[in-house]
Amino acid sequence: MFEVAEVGRSLSKEEFKRLEPEVHFHLINLQQKLREQNRALIIIVAGVEGAGKGEVVDKLNRWFDTRDVRTHAFWDETDEERERPRFWRYWRTFPTRGTISIMFGSWYSKPIIDRAFDKTNDADFESELQRIEDLERTLTHDGNIIIKLWFHLSKAEQRNRLKLDEKISKFKKSPLMDAYANSYDLLTRVSERAVRLTDSGSSPWHIIEATDNRYRDISTGQVIISTLEKALKNGLTDFAKDKAEEEDNVFQILESKKSTTTILDTLDLTQSLTAEQYNIQIEDAQLRLHNLVWDMHHQNRNAVIVFEGWDAAGKGSSIRRLTSAIDARLYRAIPIGAPTDEELAHHYLWRFWRQIPRAGFMTIYDRSWYGRVLVERVEGLADQQAWLRSYQEINNFEEHLTSHGITVIKFWIHISKDEQLRRFKDRESDPLKQHKIGEEDWRNREKWDDYTIAVNDMVAHTSTAKSPWNLVAGNDKKFARVEILNTVCENLNSLG
Amino acid sequence: MFEVAEVGRSLSKEEFKRLEPEVHFHLINLQQKLREQNRALIIIVAGVEGAGKGEVVDKLNRWFDTRDVRTHAFWDETDEERERPRFWRYWRTFPTRGTISIMFGSWYSKPIIDRAFDKTNDADFESELQRIEDLERTLTHDGNIIIKLWFHLSKAEQRNRLKLDEKISKFKKSPLMDAYANSYDLLTRVSERAVRLTDSGSSPWHIIEATDNRYRDISTGQVIISTLEKALKNGLTDFAKDKAEEEDNVFQILESKKSTTTILDTLDLTQSLTAEQYNIQIEDAQLRLHNLVWDMHHQNRNAVIVFEGWDAAGKGSSIRRLTSAIDARLYRAIPIGAPTDEELAHHYLWRFWRQIPRAGFMTIYDRSWYGRVLVERVEGLADQQAWLRSYQEINNFEEHLTSHGITVIKFWIHISKDEQLRRFKDRESDPLKQHKIGEEDWRNREKWDDYTIAVNDMVAHTSTAKSPWNLVAGNDKKFARVEILNTVCENLNSLG
Repeated sequence: MFEVAEVGRSLSKEEFKRLEPEVHFHLINLQQKLREQNRALIIIVAGVEGAGKGEVVDKLNRWFDTRDVRTHAFWDETDEERERPRFWRYWRTFPTRGTISIMFGSWYSKPIIDRAFDKTNDADFESELQRIEDLERTLTHDGNIIIKLWFHLSKAEQRNRLKLDEKISKFKKSPLMDAYANSYDLLTRVSERAVRLTDSGSSPWHIIEATDNRYRDISTGQVIISTLEKALKNGLTDFAKDKAEEEDNVFQILESKKSTTTILDTLDLTQSLTAEQYNIQIEDAQLRLHNLVWDMHHQNRNAVIVFEGWDAAGKGSSIRRLTSAIDARLYRAIPIGAPTDEELAHHYLWRFWRQIPRAGFMTIYDRSWYGRVLVERVEGLADQQAWLRSYQEINNFEEHLTSHGITVIKFWIHISKDEQLRRFKDRESDPLKQHKIGEEDWRNREKWDDYTIAVNDMVAHTSTAKSPWNLVAGNDKKFARVEILNTVCENLNSLG
Repeated sequence: MFEVAEVGRSLSKEEFKRLEPEVHFHLINLQQKLREQNRALIIIVAGVEGAGKGEVVDKLNRWFDTRDVRTHAFWDETDEERERPRFWRYWRTFPTRGTISIMFGSWYSKPIIDRAFDKTNDADFESELQRIEDLERTLTHDGNIIIKLWFHLSKAEQRNRLKLDEKISKFKKSPLMDAYANSYDLLTRVSERAVRLTDSGSSPWHIIEATDNRYRDISTGQVIISTLEKALKNGLTDFAKDKAEEEDNVFQILESKKSTTTILDTLDLTQSLTAEQYNIQIEDAQLRLHNLVWDMHHQNRNAVIVFEGWDAAGKGSSIRRLTSAIDARLYRAIPIGAPTDEELAHHYLWRFWRQIPRAGFMTIYDRSWYGRVLVERVEGLADQQAWLRSYQEINNFEEHLTSHGITVIKFWIHISKDEQLRRFKDRESDPLKQHKIGEEDWRNREKWDDYTIAVNDMVAHTSTAKSPWNLVAGNDKKFARVEILNTVCENLNSLG
């Protein structure tokens, strides 16, 4: 497919001088529209060594109003990056709405290089490309515009440049150039496959002939202009619309599955422990947990624990029983409240990616990314397409965690509607607990049935082999606490 | 001084049961006030090994509403932390306004341990404690409340605990306990000095006897309650008020220094280059710069470059001449616009600490922390005391950078008032530049004289031997660009 970029196109100095101001003008205007529509733009600058990617990045920085442009380069990973799932470093760099990220190097580099030099096999390669597609779809669905540019040079031309490099261009010689120039055929073959497999409707590749610098730069500008014009005219990319229709069907199927009996009804809420049983069992579980978390730390593993449940189900007190057994240096408990404006300016999963623990540590989320399919669904804060889509996005996210070796443990603490009422009243009358109960809790309670359906769907869609939901009978707090601690111990133990 | 905490105080079970609910209730209420007043609280939990600091941290997490509490532990530094000034890791963890950070371990640990084990000498130790005092003053001035708790055990009691540890407390045994228990006398001597030297009015130490767990926990609660009550009653700590008065005097001195001739008048704005001179000199400077930044990268050094100047002075275009000579992977250009709400919820320097480059990289700030003493001063966005204080805060901040080996290069690009008018009009008539000019620019222009005084004061207070201001004559853009590039080269070179 790269032969389309070996036809020797070029631009004269005069043509370039005529075209550049037009390109510049259009880009400035489109950038303004991007701001007004509150959309984010990701430009991926990829291609063969020697094609002048650095010069293209400079050009883009000159054409755009740079105040809203960030350039991100990816080469050596820091240990903070290495200790987290691979895509963490990219999530750190995604643009906020209204701004632009230029990715100099990207999530494509490592899979291509690893495959070319036989560090991975075909299956690994394809599954990595699949993850990339999922990532890009997740972003475009959220309103991001992704423009992927592949700069191509023929083998002869690359050789030429390598020889002449010192003379032609004093700057921008990539440190990788020498290393990879001898593997042109190999890298081109693997790259072609990567480009072909990730050339999707929502984020297609643009292959740009890079032999002539002027042609290369103007083409780059024109590709960006035409893509942006289309994307900003439609409001959302066509792909997202197609997908939306598809999902409407899914939604109808889901709706039809509504039933009066849900997975929550299968829980035996009468389970309980006596004070004596509790004291023995909780102490035993806490001691085991304490040691298991130290083991986890010493083995450089990490864990993510998610707590969801009805208001007043006992999430907070269960978390405290958990954390009081763990050395305070080894965990971080993150309560999920209203997002900050930086968080709102990103995909909703961004705030959770931010908090992923380093190797050897544990993060406990008090409420989580499941808010999307619970409160946001029930309250209509996310539209149907958005929350339906998020089942898959969440599964992908958790797959990133588990495949990095992170233990993911998810709890839904269930109580009966009567028990909730009892606890609400209790909270209202106890001065130490009054801060825990407000009008919102009473309002949520009125939507009990809607939440029940949402929980059922959530479990149906996101309970996977590697990160299953643990439904906990919570009417008896003692029983629930011991159950939760034991479950955490089992999960940590099975991986030890 | 620690003997005050060796008198054998204790609490009976009954007293504890009576007192704990009161402490809990007060803390919940004070936390609510903290939120209402939008103040942040930092609790430092320090002291001898074996004193039960982990248990105290648990207790605090139980007493407070944990949704607004974060516990931070500090032990091994990540490489992202090691590659930045020492305090970067603490700045990452400071609480947002209205919330609480519990520091389990803190900026005190390393200086004490390093001194005790002779990795540093007395002078290093004292200068580090001075930096800590500066940091704490910076925070308290900004409305943070800092409570420093030192938990003490006598030598005999620590020995006792070590022996009995397995039996008394199954959890929370610190991994450092064994390592440091044999150095009780040494550590206590150094710690006492640290505590004494940093026992300031704005953030005094509280020494708590930790022999009896119940007494320890209740005392902790009571210290926090009384400190918070005082701090929240006053609105700001007394210390800040005292300081404020002192600074009023400073201000009067400054005001009296007003004069019609400022440092900016010493610049020769007629300096210029011909097109031919420019082409030769800029290319030469860019080539040198390109190589010097690669050298910097390979030597694991980093650099921070700050651009300030009049509107339309040519900051943006100068930055582009700079960046176009640097490999796009080695620098990041950060335009400083309106702060995000996360940034607003911290000390104003927090957003700059966030962006400090890793070893081997360069950050270029397009406008900077000097906004505090320029636009915020002139527009009255920061009160007098705040911006006056910030001269010292900024000097301390830059000292953190330079003493970590970061090259700090600061430019003020100066143009005449007439030249600015010419450029404003030019921008208004050029469709490619219209986005760069707005009403705000015209409004700022009206305050030219106020800004001139502010710039003069800024240079007077913050031009230090290690990070001097470079005033650039900007009427001729070509001259300014070459001057800037050459200055950057010289600075990078002198450290190479």
